[in-house]
Amino acid sequence: MAAGRFIAFEGGEGTGKSTQARLLADRLGAVLTREPGGTPIGARIREIVLASEENGLTDRAEALLMAADRAHHVATLIAPTLAGGRHVVTDRFLGSSVAYQGFGRGLATEEIRDLSLWATDGLQPDLVVLLVVERTEARARIGHARDRVEKAGPAFHDAVTEGFVELARADPERWVTVDGGGTPAEVEARVGAVVVDRLALPP
Amino acid sequence: MAAGRFIAFEGGEGTGKSTQARLLADRLGAVLTREPGGTPIGARIREIVLASEENGLTDRAEALLMAADRAHHVATLIAPTLAGGRHVVTDRFLGSSVAYQGFGRGLATEEIRDLSLWATDGLQPDLVVLLVVERTEARARIGHARDRVEKAGPAFHDAVTEGFVELARADPERWVTVDGGGTPAEVEARVGAVVVDRLALPP
Repeated sequence: MAAGRFIAFEGGEGTGKSTQARLLADRLGAVLTREPGGTPIGARIREIVLASEENGLTDRAEALLMAADRAHHVATLIAPTLAGGRHVVTDRFLGSSVAYQGFGRGLATEEIRDLSLWATDGLQPDLVVLLVVERTEARARIGHARDRVEKAGPAFHDAVTEGFVELARADPERWVTVDGGGTPAEVEARVGAVVVDRLALPP
Repeated sequence: MAAGRFIAFEGGEGTGKSTQARLLADRLGAVLTREPGGTPIGARIREIVLASEENGLTDRAEALLMAADRAHHVATLIAPTLAGGRHVVTDRFLGSSVAYQGFGRGLATEEIRDLSLWATDGLQPDLVVLLVVERTEARARIGHARDRVEKAGPAFHDAVTEGFVELARADPERWVTVDGGGTPAEVEARVGAVVVDRLALPP
């Protein structure tokens, strides 16, 4: 039995990642999951991370909590699902840690990457789809900020977006950038074409 | 103003660490704290780690949660307290991660150590007091196992104890081993003498 393929969606707030991850998972018959919070333990970790800013979570602690969530997610859900022959689509993965904790919060990006690779015991996605939209469109989609991460402000989010673009540029074998502008159906068509092409899946 | 001194107690279950940490903190007028769970966020992390074994927490996730707890603990409590001139006594620190997640669970000890040093941004205790007691005495003190960590079984706990002894042997400048047998007052006298001597504190 062939192992399943592992696809991650990455991008800033308001880029349509969650919608597109769901649509692609439906199309491929894949297991849909997300980070943080893809497992019961991860949901408890996610609560700590996303609690409103009064909790004063420090940057390194945030990075380590995200890595703990990822370690448990990979070991108990992603790796066994792939080994069982099913595809997995995740809404965020390692790239989000590097973009948010590294480029956004200013921790060393290589250290954040190494931390995550230790957490996943080296597992990386077969394909990372980065959705990019104009910042005015992304902000209109977000509406008012809902949690600690979304409240961090425009300079933070610009740094995160630039971080994602840099990650995609540095690893073109694994990453593909897709224009997230327009209707969900329009974006879905672009994503579908790219995934079929890059993973050599049946159209 | 001189910075405070940072003292960690380490050892297996039933060695009297918590009692001795409290007694030494009283004697020195130090801030007493513990890991995991020395901060409000740490208490939430501790709940996840110590939940009974049905949560199936994976080894790497456990190690990363401990490191997250430590990062937040150092940044919000330990480092500011030391900088303010007060001593800090902690019941467990970095050595417990290396002993439990490394020697106990079989993860690479250098990786666990590096993870913790990243979490603390390099901060280490001025002195680590390792309490060692005969295993029959330790088991009698524990009584029946109470949580996931304590239920892990005698082979696990023997590996942890051997790990602590190896850590103390490898870093004699920082670690001191104290016989934890006898009454709390007897142990307190031994600990007090060692701390005064090693940190050149007033007797």
